[in-house]
Amino acid sequence: MELHPEVEPLAFLLGRWSGEGTGEYPTIKPFAFREEVTFEHNGKPFLSYSQKTWSLIDDSPMHSETGYLRLAGPAPRRLEIVLAHSTGLVEVSEGILEPGKIELISTNVHGTSTAKTVTAIGRSIVVAEDVFKYRLRMAAGGLPAHHHLSGELQRVSD
Amino acid sequence: MELHPEVEPLAFLLGRWSGEGTGEYPTIKPFAFREEVTFEHNGKPFLSYSQKTWSLIDDSPMHSETGYLRLAGPAPRRLEIVLAHSTGLVEVSEGILEPGKIELISTNVHGTSTAKTVTAIGRSIVVAEDVFKYRLRMAAGGLPAHHHLSGELQRVSD
Repeated sequence: MELHPEVEPLAFLLGRWSGEGTGEYPTIKPFAFREEVTFEHNGKPFLSYSQKTWSLIDDSPMHSETGYLRLAGPAPRRLEIVLAHSTGLVEVSEGILEPGKIELISTNVHGTSTAKTVTAIGRSIVVAEDVFKYRLRMAAGGLPAHHHLSGELQRVSD
Repeated sequence: MELHPEVEPLAFLLGRWSGEGTGEYPTIKPFAFREEVTFEHNGKPFLSYSQKTWSLIDDSPMHSETGYLRLAGPAPRRLEIVLAHSTGLVEVSEGILEPGKIELISTNVHGTSTAKTVTAIGRSIVVAEDVFKYRLRMAAGGLPAHHHLSGELQRVSD
C-alpha cells in the first residue's frame, strides 16, 4: 500500500516501537512500565496510532490509548492528533512537525462522567535513527501542568 | 485472559463482526460500505473497540474509529465510551446498557482545526444471537440531528 503523499512527512514514525518509560505526578508514587507504540497507514491521509503499557513488576496491562494523526497546512507543518485513552478521556492535540521532532499541546481534553479530571496534555517526541523518545506533561486533578511521563523506545519492525 | 467482572455485562459484544451498512445525510449522496467491528479486552475493566469501513465499489478504505467502552454504576447500567475518528474528531458518549441493547448520546464531540464540524452523535445498537445492528444519528455542518448510518454485522469470530 502506497503511503498517501500528504502524510509522507510522518513516514519516520511508521512501524512498531518497543521500550520502557517512567511516570510521576505530584499526587502519585513514581512508576515504571514497558511500552509498545504502533503507527500504521491504510493509504489515506492519516496515520493510525496505538499505544499500550505494562507493569514492569508483574507484566499486567496498565494504560492504553489509540487514535489518528494528520497534517494540516504547509511547513512548518501543523500536526493534528485525536486520541481516546483507556482511562475514559479523549484528547485533541495540535502542534508542529519538524524533521524528527513533534511538539503538541491539547486543544480539548474531555472525560466521561466517571473519569479523572485532566485539563491539558503536552507531548514532545524526538525520533533519531531508530530511537523514539517522548515526554508528556499533564494538568490533572486541579493542578497546573506538570511532567508526567517519559520513555525511550526502539523500532522493532517497519 | 479472564474478563474483568465489571465488564461482564458487555461480554455479548466481544469478538469480530463483519457486514455492510449504508449512509445518508441531507448534504451528501447516499453511500454503502463493507464494515468490520472488533471488541476486545485485556483483563482490565474496559473493552477496546475498533471499526473500519470500505467502499463497496472499489474496496478502498473509508471511515475508521477506535476507542474504549466502560461501565459506570449499577443497573440500568450506565455505559461510557470514548472514541477517536479518522476524520479528526473525538467523541465522548454516555448511555444505558440493557440486555443486548445499547443507547448512547454524545456529551462531547470535538474536532481538530481542519475537521468538519460535528456537534452531536447518537448511537443505537441491538445484538440478538450473532447479529449486530446499529443506527447512528449525527448533527453536523450546522444541521440538527439527522439519521446518518445504519448497518448489520454478523459475528465472524469470538
